[in-house]
This record gives sequence, C-alpha cells and structure tokens, in this order.
Amino acid sequence: MRHVSTQSIPARRGPKPNPATRDNLLRAGMDMLHGSGYSATGIKEIVDAANVPKGSFYNHFESKEVFGREIVDHYFLTNLPALQAHFTDQSVPPLERLRSYFEDRIRSFEAGGYVRGCLMGNLSLEVADHSEVIRDQLAEHFQTWSALIEQCVLSAQELGMMSGRLPAVLLAQFLLNSWEGALLRMRVERTDAPLREFMTVVFDSLLV
Amino acid sequence: MRHVSTQSIPARRGPKPNPATRDNLLRAGMDMLHGSGYSATGIKEIVDAANVPKGSFYNHFESKEVFGREIVDHYFLTNLPALQAHFTDQSVPPLERLRSYFEDRIRSFEAGGYVRGCLMGNLSLEVADHSEVIRDQLAEHFQTWSALIEQCVLSAQELGMMSGRLPAVLLAQFLLNSWEGALLRMRVERTDAPLREFMTVVFDSLLV
Repeated sequence: MRHVSTQSIPARRGPKPNPATRDNLLRAGMDMLHGSGYSATGIKEIVDAANVPKGSFYNHFESKEVFGREIVDHYFLTNLPALQAHFTDQSVPPLERLRSYFEDRIRSFEAGGYVRGCLMGNLSLEVADHSEVIRDQLAEHFQTWSALIEQCVLSAQELGMMSGRLPAVLLAQFLLNSWEGALLRMRVERTDAPLREFMTVVFDSLLV
Repeated sequence: MRHVSTQSIPARRGPKPNPATRDNLLRAGMDMLHGSGYSATGIKEIVDAANVPKGSFYNHFESKEVFGREIVDHYFLTNLPALQAHFTDQSVPPLERLRSYFEDRIRSFEAGGYVRGCLMGNLSLEVADHSEVIRDQLAEHFQTWSALIEQCVLSAQELGMMSGRLPAVLLAQFLLNSWEGALLRMRVERTDAPLREFMTVVFDSLLV
C-alpha cells in the first residue's frame, strides 16, 4: 500500500514549494537586480535577503536565468493593470493621459534620487545579448507598453488634437525608446534635466 | 654608495610599468566590458585575455573602478577625432552630417548582429549608480558628444534649413538620449527597426 501510494505522488527533491517563499524570492530578487544589476547579484544574496534556505531557490526556479525572466514578468505585470487603466481612461484627453503618466514617473524618480531607472531597460543592456528567454520577455512587455502609448496617440490623431502625418505606432515606439534613453542619461546626470528635455520636445514639438 | 643610489630612485613594488601592457589591458578590458558587462568581467579574465600576469594590472590601475574610468576614456577619446572631423565638416550640409553619422552607425550595428550597443550607454545603466568616478566621466563625454550634435543643429537653424522654434542645445540632448534609447531597444528586438524608427521621426518630423 505504501509503495503504491508513494508512486501516485510525483517524486519531489525537497518539501512542497511554498508560494509565499516564491513571492519573497521574487520581491527580494527584483529589488536587488534593480539596485545592483543582474551579474552583481548572487543567488546566495537573494536567498539571504528573502530569509530562506538556498535549496529552496531551486524548488521554485530552475536557474538564475529563469528567475530573471520571472522578475521581468513580476516587474511589468504587477504594474500593468494600473498602466492599462491610466492609458485607456476615456475621461481624460489622450495627450493628457500620456503627459500625466510621464510627469508621475518623473516625480517618482525625483523622490528616489534619480537612481535605478527602469529595470527592463537595465536588463535590456546588461542581459539581453546573453539570454534569449529574458530578451524575449523584455520584447513582449515593451510591445505591450508601446501598444498602450499607441492607443493614446491614435486617439489624439483621430480627435484632431495632433497631426496624423506620422503613424501612431511609429511615434509610440519612438516615445517609449526615447523615454528609456532619457532615463539612461538621468542616471549619469543625476538630475531631471534629461526627463524635462524629453517632455519639452515630445509635448511642444512632436505630438502637436 | 649603493644605499644612496637606491634612495635616489623612487621605490617600486614591481617592474617599471610597460605602456604596451597598459594598452593591451585597456583593449582587452574594453572588449570584455562591452561584450559581457562590468560586473560579469573579472580582473583575472582581463589579464588572461591580455596575456599578462595578474600583478601587472595593479601596476597600471589602482582598482577595477579606475580601470573602468580609463576604459570609458579609451572608448570615447579614441573615436573623438573622427567624430569631430565628421560633425564639423563644412563641405557637407549640417543635417546631412547628422544623418550620415547615424546611418553609418546603423550599418555598423547591422554588421555586428545588433549586439553590444554603446559601451557608454551600457555602463550608464550598470555602473553609474555605484561609481562617481565612472559616472562623472560618462557625463563629461556625453556632453562633448551632445555639443557636436548641437553645432550641426544650430548650423541648420542658422541656415534656415529647419525650424528654430526649439533651442539647438535641447534638441541635441534629446537626439543623443533618444539614440541611446533606440540602441537599448535594438538589443531587445535584434533588428534595426528601433534605429530606423529613430531616423524617420528625427529626420521627417523633428529636424524640419
């Protein structure tokens, strides 16, 4: 009986993975990858910060690379509902939705001292060349993000609030990439100047 | 006599630093930092790639951080004369100087398979938060680069080839940062699409 019973349950190498442990690892890892980068963060530091034994890491993630992909998801998908709600809020004019989104992010970076920037941007430069799974995940989330911006630009064009000379999809991709570039320069300058320059060029010249 | 003679020569910890060794270390280090990133590259790997003993690293550079700063200089200053010659070439219309610069860079990234990107951009996201000396060096070189772009924009405005509504200095900073952002997205997409989108928006809309 015992033998049959054991066979009916798939073999495990350790105790049953605890979803709370997984969540703790993702939170601690996300914070450390954002603060120090991917290569500079070791699995031992992550499990120590999450206050779990090292073996439990591999109960939840088969490798650091898979963990990195999950971090990208955790970072983007946690914020996605709020992002979608903001960008599709029909009670606000479309260009105002865009402007207030970026203004809000600028205030957040100002409060944080202009460090860390965008975790997706950071991993794009540090890891994308070396990990197809992380790169694919970054690509997918950047496309989702860009599509939300595109909806605002398209609405503004359809409502005659800005020129329709350049396709909304092109402007949206450019805006998103330029924002990532402005954040990159912010990290070097430690001021909001690159972000303010972005706002001026985008809202006084590009989206008019 | 021997004692006096010894005193007249400053004490050294090792053999006299060899400028060729220093150059080999910088070349090897630049290639590895560009390919793998700052944290992922160890000093042992750099000295092995440069084929010099580990001790010689510290004859030339007091720390990895100082080495990183020298790499930033080596990367930017090696290319600066050609950059200056290109951007100040009065025989070419100013906007054409800008366009051909970016087109040339796009061809280069295409030939390289859209990896590595800009070493200065990479270090901005990976290291700038953690090293004031590297951050300051990046800031200085980005300003030099932006000033060259600014000269072209200003010339184009003065010649009436584009609108003077936005200050040249603002447009130049925005262009440089947006280019860095386009390179970031290129690393994720592994295509030239983000670079082509940059060209279209900049030369069909922004600089007209």
